[in-house]
Amino acid sequence: MDERPIGVFDSGTGGLTVVKALRDLLPDEKIFYLGDTARVPYGGKSASTVERYSLEIADILIEENAKIVVVACNTASSLALPKLEKHLPVAVIGVIRPGARAAVAATRNDHIGVIGTRATIKSGAYERELRALNPDIRISVRACPLLVPLIEEAWLNDELTDRVIGRYLEPLVREGIDTLVLGCTHYPLLVDALSRALGERVKLVDSAHNCATAVRELLDRQEFRAPSGTLGGLEIALTDTPDNFLRVAREALQLEIGEIQLREVLHGAATL
Amino acid sequence: MDERPIGVFDSGTGGLTVVKALRDLLPDEKIFYLGDTARVPYGGKSASTVERYSLEIADILIEENAKIVVVACNTASSLALPKLEKHLPVAVIGVIRPGARAAVAATRNDHIGVIGTRATIKSGAYERELRALNPDIRISVRACPLLVPLIEEAWLNDELTDRVIGRYLEPLVREGIDTLVLGCTHYPLLVDALSRALGERVKLVDSAHNCATAVRELLDRQEFRAPSGTLGGLEIALTDTPDNFLRVAREALQLEIGEIQLREVLHGAATL
Repeated sequence: MDERPIGVFDSGTGGLTVVKALRDLLPDEKIFYLGDTARVPYGGKSASTVERYSLEIADILIEENAKIVVVACNTASSLALPKLEKHLPVAVIGVIRPGARAAVAATRNDHIGVIGTRATIKSGAYERELRALNPDIRISVRACPLLVPLIEEAWLNDELTDRVIGRYLEPLVREGIDTLVLGCTHYPLLVDALSRALGERVKLVDSAHNCATAVRELLDRQEFRAPSGTLGGLEIALTDTPDNFLRVAREALQLEIGEIQLREVLHGAATL
Repeated sequence: MDERPIGVFDSGTGGLTVVKALRDLLPDEKIFYLGDTARVPYGGKSASTVERYSLEIADILIEENAKIVVVACNTASSLALPKLEKHLPVAVIGVIRPGARAAVAATRNDHIGVIGTRATIKSGAYERELRALNPDIRISVRACPLLVPLIEEAWLNDELTDRVIGRYLEPLVREGIDTLVLGCTHYPLLVDALSRALGERVKLVDSAHNCATAVRELLDRQEFRAPSGTLGGLEIALTDTPDNFLRVAREALQLEIGEIQLREVLHGAATL
C-alpha cells in the first residue's frame, strides 16, 4: 500500500492521454502530471539535450514524492530512459516498450505498422523495440506530421481528417499490416477516425493504454498500489503556458482538470 | 558600393522564401543565411528568450561582415526588432512592417485579412503595425496551423490542401476582406493554392517579397548596393540539422543551395 502519487511527464500536454488511461485503470491513484511546455517539442532535439531536460523534469516529480515515474513522451522514452533509470530513486516506465509488446502479442501475420511524428519515426525507437522482441517481424512505418495539428484544431471526426488519414495509411494497408501502433501520445484522440479508415482488418495498439497497463502491473508487483477506496485525483503542472492540445484534450478525454500550476525548471538542477 | 553580404536569419528554413525574393530582386548581392534549427520554433517562446536567441544569431551574421541584417522570421520580427536595432552596428529590417505597409497600400475597402501560425496571430504583431499605419483599418485574422505541415509534406498543389485553405479563408472572405497578408515566411509556397481559393477578389500580400523590396530601398538609400555585374551568391548555415522545409523549398523555390554549413551558437555571447 502506498498513497504517494504516480508521477507522469511529457514535453507538452499530449501525455494526458496516458493520464486518462491511468485514471480509468487505477481510479484510486493520485497522479501528478508535469508538462514541459516551455521547451516543447523534444522531438528533433539532440539526445543529450533530451536526457538533460528529462532529468530536470523527473527531479520535480521526485520532489513531489512520486512513487514511480511514467515517461508519457515518445521522444524522452526513446532517448532518456536508461539515464532516468540510472539516476532516479524510483522505477521508470516509458510508452514505447509497452506499445511494442502489445503489438507483438496482437499481430497474427507478424507484420506491424507504426505511425508517429516525423521525429519519432526517424528515431527508429519502435522498430528497435519490436525487433528486440521478435527479430523476424516485418515493420512498415509512416511519419504522419499532419495528425497532431489536426488534433490541435479539434478536427477529430471530420471528413478532411479522414482523408489525410486515408492517404497516410493506404500504403501500410497495401503492404499488408494487420496491427498498427499509435506511436504518438496525441493519437488516441483519433481512434474513431483511424478505425473508420482501417475497418476491422487492422488491430489498433494504443501506446497510452498499454503504458497504463504496464504501470498497474509494476505497482502490483512492488505492492505500491494505493489502498482501494482511496480518493484518487489529478494535479497538473506545466513549465509554461499550455499548448493547444490541452483545450482539445479537456473535452475529448473528459478529464477533470482543475487549476493548472506553473512550475519553473531550474536549469542544471538535475543530478546528472 | 559595398560588396559585403546581406545577412538573413530565421528560426528555421522558412526564411528562404525571403532569400528567394532577394535573389530575384538583387541578383548582384551576396547573401549569408543563418537558420537557428537547433532552437526552432521561436513562436511560443517568451519575448526575452526570443530577444536573446535573435541577438546570438545576429552576432554570427555581424561576424560574417553583414552590411545589413534581415530578420526573415515573424516571431523575431515581432519581438526582437527594437533590441536588435539598439545593439547591432548595422541596419535591421524585419518582415512585418514591409508586409503591413504593402497591405495598407493595396486595400481599397480598408479591410485586411492576416493569416499566420498560431503564435504569430496570437502576438497581434501585424494588427499593431496595420493600426499604426491606419487606425481606422478593419482587420480579420486567422491562425492557420495546418499550413506549415502541409507545406512540409510538399502537398502544395493538392486537393486536400485546397480544402484546408478553403475552410480557413471562408470566414475572412465572408467578412469582406479585399487584401490578405501572408504572415508566415512559409506561405509563399502556397501562393497558387491561395489564389485558387480567393480568385481575383482578394489581393495577396507576400511578406517575403515586400521585405526584399524594403531591403533594396534601404541599400539604395545608404549607397550600400553591390557593384552592378558583381557575382552574387548564397551561403547557408544552420545551427542543427535542416528541418523538412529545406527539402521542399529547394525544389519549389528553385534556389541554388550548395553545401550547408553547421554553426554552433555560443550561448551568452550576445552583446545584451
